[in-house]
Parts: sequence; C-alpha cells; structure tokens
Amino acid sequence: MQEQKLLINSKRLKETIEKFADFGRTANNGVTRLSLSKEDVAARNYLVDCCKELGMSVKVDDVANIYATMEGIVDKPPLVMGSHLDSVKKGGRFDGVLGVIAALEVARTLHDHHIKPKIPFTLVDFTNEEGARFDPAMMCSGIISGKFAKSEMLKSMDPDGVPFGQALAASGYEGDAVNRLEEATAYLEMHIEQGPVLESENLGIGIVEGVVGMVNYEIEVTGESDHAGTTPMRMRKDALFAATDVIAELRKKLSSLAEDLVYTMGRLIVTPNIHTVIPDRVVFTLEARHKDPEVVEQVVQTIQALPDLLEGCSIKTKKLWGRDTVAFNSAICCQLEKSTKELGYSYKKMYSGAGHDAQYIADYIPTAMIFVPSVKGKSHCEEEMTPYEACAKGVNVALDTVLAILSEQ
Amino acid sequence: MQEQKLLINSKRLKETIEKFADFGRTANNGVTRLSLSKEDVAARNYLVDCCKELGMSVKVDDVANIYATMEGIVDKPPLVMGSHLDSVKKGGRFDGVLGVIAALEVARTLHDHHIKPKIPFTLVDFTNEEGARFDPAMMCSGIISGKFAKSEMLKSMDPDGVPFGQALAASGYEGDAVNRLEEATAYLEMHIEQGPVLESENLGIGIVEGVVGMVNYEIEVTGESDHAGTTPMRMRKDALFAATDVIAELRKKLSSLAEDLVYTMGRLIVTPNIHTVIPDRVVFTLEARHKDPEVVEQVVQTIQALPDLLEGCSIKTKKLWGRDTVAFNSAICCQLEKSTKELGYSYKKMYSGAGHDAQYIADYIPTAMIFVPSVKGKSHCEEEMTPYEACAKGVNVALDTVLAILSEQ
Repeated sequence: MQEQKLLINSKRLKETIEKFADFGRTANNGVTRLSLSKEDVAARNYLVDCCKELGMSVKVDDVANIYATMEGIVDKPPLVMGSHLDSVKKGGRFDGVLGVIAALEVARTLHDHHIKPKIPFTLVDFTNEEGARFDPAMMCSGIISGKFAKSEMLKSMDPDGVPFGQALAASGYEGDAVNRLEEATAYLEMHIEQGPVLESENLGIGIVEGVVGMVNYEIEVTGESDHAGTTPMRMRKDALFAATDVIAELRKKLSSLAEDLVYTMGRLIVTPNIHTVIPDRVVFTLEARHKDPEVVEQVVQTIQALPDLLEGCSIKTKKLWGRDTVAFNSAICCQLEKSTKELGYSYKKMYSGAGHDAQYIADYIPTAMIFVPSVKGKSHCEEEMTPYEACAKGVNVALDTVLAILSEQ
Repeated sequence: MQEQKLLINSKRLKETIEKFADFGRTANNGVTRLSLSKEDVAARNYLVDCCKELGMSVKVDDVANIYATMEGIVDKPPLVMGSHLDSVKKGGRFDGVLGVIAALEVARTLHDHHIKPKIPFTLVDFTNEEGARFDPAMMCSGIISGKFAKSEMLKSMDPDGVPFGQALAASGYEGDAVNRLEEATAYLEMHIEQGPVLESENLGIGIVEGVVGMVNYEIEVTGESDHAGTTPMRMRKDALFAATDVIAELRKKLSSLAEDLVYTMGRLIVTPNIHTVIPDRVVFTLEARHKDPEVVEQVVQTIQALPDLLEGCSIKTKKLWGRDTVAFNSAICCQLEKSTKELGYSYKKMYSGAGHDAQYIADYIPTAMIFVPSVKGKSHCEEEMTPYEACAKGVNVALDTVLAILSEQ
C-alpha cells in the first residue's frame, strides 16, 4: 500500500501567486516587473519578509541574488530551489516568480509540519534573468557560474541609460560576493513550460532533462537596387527574391534533419524597403535548437552549404552565437519522475527549448527542472496562464522530491 | 541624297548640363535639388535668365510651373518641350533636368540659326515631379491636368513639416493660374531611360510609345507569435514562412504571364522582428507594371486567387493604387522614329516603366517622349550617368522632330 504523501497548501499557493502579481500588475492582469525596478524591489522585500516569518536567514550576494536559508540538522551544502522574480515588460504572472513561490511554498509546508530539514534548504531569487532591462538574459546566474564577467555586466545599460551597476547600488540589494551560491547538494527549479507541448498532450508535469543547444546565424543576401518599373526581370539582382529562395531551401533541408528540431527566421530586414525599388539587401537571422549536438551541427553544415551566389546575389553567413546542450542531473530527474508517478500525475520527460538560470547553475551543482503547462504555450505576454491546480501539482512534485533528497542525506 | 540635318551644339549642351549640376551638386558629383528648395530656385533663376537671353517670354503658373516661350510666326497653340528641374535627395545630374536643358538647347539652336518657329515654342519646367520633397510625384503636371486637387496638394508636407503651399509662396515662383499649360500642338519630353535596356542592347535612342500601367497591392500575412525555442514546428503559425511561400507562389505565377511584365516586392516588414520570436505578421507590397491592361488584370487575378489561409496564417490583400497604361501620340512617335532613322541613330520603340509628367500631359495634349540610355540602368542616385554624346543624340532627335512639327503647321 502506497504511503500518504505530504502535500502543499494549494489555497495558500494561489493566494501567494496573486499577491506577487500585485508587484507590477498591469491593466490587463499581466506584470511589468523589470529587474531592480521599484516593483521588483517591492517583490523582493515581500519575499524576504515571508522567508523571515519562517525563521529563514536571508543573505544577498554582490549581484543582488537573494538566498533565504532554512537551517538543517547538519551543516552540509544546501538543497537549493528557486528561480527569478523579474519579468519582461507586459509579461505574465507566472514566468519566473512561480519558481520562487514554489520554493517558498515548499519551505512553508516544511514549516507547517515542523520538519527540520536534514541539510539546509535554500530559496534563491536570481537577479535579471529576463535580460529585459539589462542585456544579457540570465545575467546573475551567469555571473556566479563564471559565464559572464561581473565588471562587464555592471556596465550593461537599460533603455534609459542606467547601468546595471548603478541600479544594483540603488536597489538596496547589493550584498557580498562571499554569499554567492557555491557548493550545494542540488538545485531544483520549477518554471512554466513557455511552450504548448504539455497542454496539447494533456500532461501535468514536464520533467526537464536539460536545455537544448542552439545556434544563431545571420544570413546576408546582397543584390542590386534598381528601379522597379524600368528593370526587366532577367536583368535584376533582387535580394528579396534570392532571400526567399534561401529561406525555402533552408526550410526544406532543416525539416528533414530531426522531427523535434526547431528553427526560426525571426528577424528579417529589407533594404532600402521602398515599394518602387528592387531590394539590394536582405539580412535575416536563423536560430535553431535541438538537444542533440549532432543535429545542431547538421544545421550549421546546412547553413555553410548555402551557395555564395544565387540569382546574381551574394550570400554571406555569420554565426552570431551558439550554446551547447546542457544535460541536467539524471539522479534528480529520476527522483522527479518517481515523485510524479507516485503522486499520480501525468508527465513527460523533455528538454527545455528556452533558456533558464538552471542551465548555468547546472555547471557546478546537480540540477534539474520541473515544467508546468502554459495555456496555449504563451509566455512573455499578459495572457500567460498556468491554472492554479497545475501550479500546485508542480509544487507537490517539487516538495516530494525535496523530501526524498533530504531523506537521502 | 539626304539633306544636311541641322544639329545642336554638343559642346554647349555638355557645358549646360555641367552648369545645372552646380545647383545642389553633392560631394560625389550627384545632385540634391529638392523641389522649391534654394537649390531648385537658383536653378530656376538661371533657367529663366538663359531663356530671356534668347528673347523668350517667361510666365509662371499658380503652382510654379515655368513656361518660357519663343514667339511663333503665327499665334497658334505652342509646341511644348520640357521636363523638371527637381531631383531626389542624392540624385543624379540627368534625371529631369536633361529634358529641360534639351528644350533650352533646341531653343538656342533655333536662335543660333535665326529660325523663327512657325508656331510658338515653349519650354516648360514642371514643379515637384519627383515627389521627393512633397508627396505625390508628378504633382504639378498632375494638378494642371486635373489629376490632383490643388487644395489638397497645398497641404502636402515635406519631412520638415513645411506644406507645399508655404514653400510655393516662399519660392517667388507662385504665378497665376491663367498661365497654366492648356491647349498645345504637342508636348515632347526627353528623359533618361532609368533602366538598363538601351545600354544593354547598345542602342542610342528610345522612342517612348507610352507609360506602362501598374497596380500596387499590400499583402498581409498574419500568424501567431510564439517562443522560438519552445514551440514545435508542427504547432507554429509562422507568418514569415507563410509569406515566403506566398512570394514564391506569386513569382511562379507572375513569371508565366508575360515576358516583359515586371513585378517587385520592394517593401516587406516583419513583426515583431525579434530573433527569438516566431513572426506573427508580415506585410509586403507587390507592384507590377505592364503596357497591356489585360496582363495587369491577370496580375490582379493572381493576387486575388491567393488562399485566405496558408499554413495556419491568414492572408489579406489590399489594393493600394493602380494606374492605367498611357499611350502616347502615334504621329509624334512616327516622326521621332523618322528623325532618329534619318540621323542614323540606333533605336527601339519602347514603353516607359517609370512615371513622367508626360503621362499626365498626354491626357489633353498630343505627347511623346525620347529616352537616352542610363549607364547600368541607374537613376535616382549619384552614379546616374548618360554620356554627353548620348545626350546630344537625344537632343538632335528632339530638334529634328521639333523642326518637322513646325514645318507641318
């Protein structure tokens, strides 16, 4: 007979999600809570108060990452859980903040049941995950994991010309580098899927085994700008016609590489972009993501195999950036699967197509993630929605996995 | 034996072209002479001086079109020749001004040889042909031929917020509506081809039988904006992919309609145009030009036959504008051909793909045009070039045709 599972307080979870949505709530029930804005600082203050109420000790590192720790029975490296409080402009009530609230709800449930964890349990809020105010995204998990140089990041400017360093100093959350997350037993992050897969397959939980690798190229097609009325078709070097043929060719080849490869030409700029002038230049981006590095390499080869010249136009390709696939910790993923099964929730194992703080933390701490469904796959918009019951399922899986990890220590 | 032809003064023609290029000459030997700018007014003043030196009487109408008339033996409706002095920003030394200079050189040659024309010979400079400062193009030939309402045109604003009416008043060239070009025996306009056909076929003269008709459509493809990393390909409604397929389909169908049909997707705008976001909207223009109205109609039918829905995206088409083919006067074209042949110049009969003042004037005055070759088909740019000898050939054809028309009166 299956033992009775400890469950979180779903009503409190819902209230907490609603409460946090007040910090930057928009007219359309979304959230604008840019990193280190007054809305973000208000949310941080509230979070700190909630943690202190549970007797957690709160520390802040030199890039405003917040760590709230519930003391453990033994002083070993903590089990860490969290995400980020910042949002994009006119974003939703779930992206990021839900992972912080999930950690808070786990802590509260432990507290409710007078469970003193075997090892410390630490809630974390990473600064500027979205990169919506200060480029790049995942800035501060990136800094503490050695991906970005702090000195460079301090200069990153928001659209109003305020450098990150200045916003940091003004926030009241500039702490000490000695508090940075270093050794830890595990890092667990719950997040909305930001894609339509779980909802469309009617599944409750995504057990995230890693983050897909990606490449991002810029492709430039250069032709010749001539008068649209006086230049016979056979004498044209129309950069838009060549570019659309390049796009068709790329789509044809990429579609045959792997079923779950995703590829997007998201940005395309035509020059001079005048209806009576034949375009002489089209520049577009191609980004592709897949968990298998070989498939990503095949994408690169496909791009590199483009002809130098097509329909009289020259074609140049430039790699803007790429990132390798990050595999999460299989033992934690196994435990997540076990917890999910025991709780009776439907699930699938999947890779994240989007980037998360967890992918940087995974570099030096055993890490995994839990996804909960996004209605219509929407995120980074005011319509972003994950039903409260779906959120609760995710937090229950997190709690059960946290308890399992604690029991192993 | 062929009689000796009267020829223009090629050296003077060259010097006059160079002289006019001083009015707004750019660093790269192009010209910026926006309509009614101080450069345009300086060129007008110089033109008026040149005409007065020949004893021509100068009048200006209410929209600053200049008419300089050499008295005829009989006071019948004049033979009119001209074009426009204004240029686009960073335009060339030939577009427009060459037609005015050609008329001046014809007048000067008549004057040199003490030829008093049978009927009055009038040089005309039409205001704001380019539409580069005040939209639309061919504004003032359009006003006097009843295509545009003057009251509306007076409000047309330049990029600095100056209305055409204000620039007109300030120019010193606001004359009287009574001076507008009305009845005339013929209107002849020489212009650079602005296309590569004459040069590529190694021909000296284009006898322009008309201006092609055109349609201009806007095509809007609407899909759904989703996360480029998390949305499986099969669940996307990628407006850019649908738009490129629409463009491919249109190209395929249009290319089979008529060999000399030209079609251009010159402007294309992607929304939101972010490399990590699937485009939800692509709007592009399609303009097509052909002399045969039936072919233009087939273009319209091709656009209208586009599906409403493609790859999950909706497709909407909107006609922005169109213009009918304008046929020039066949008798004048015959005379142009005769003159060209007798002068021993190579030529072809052709339609203009670009718009010209002549197409509006043709509405009420027997009209034709002469084209001279554009090197590499370039116009509206500083590299715009027609060799002086090629210009001279064009003006010799004009002179011979003017003499022929005068002799018929």
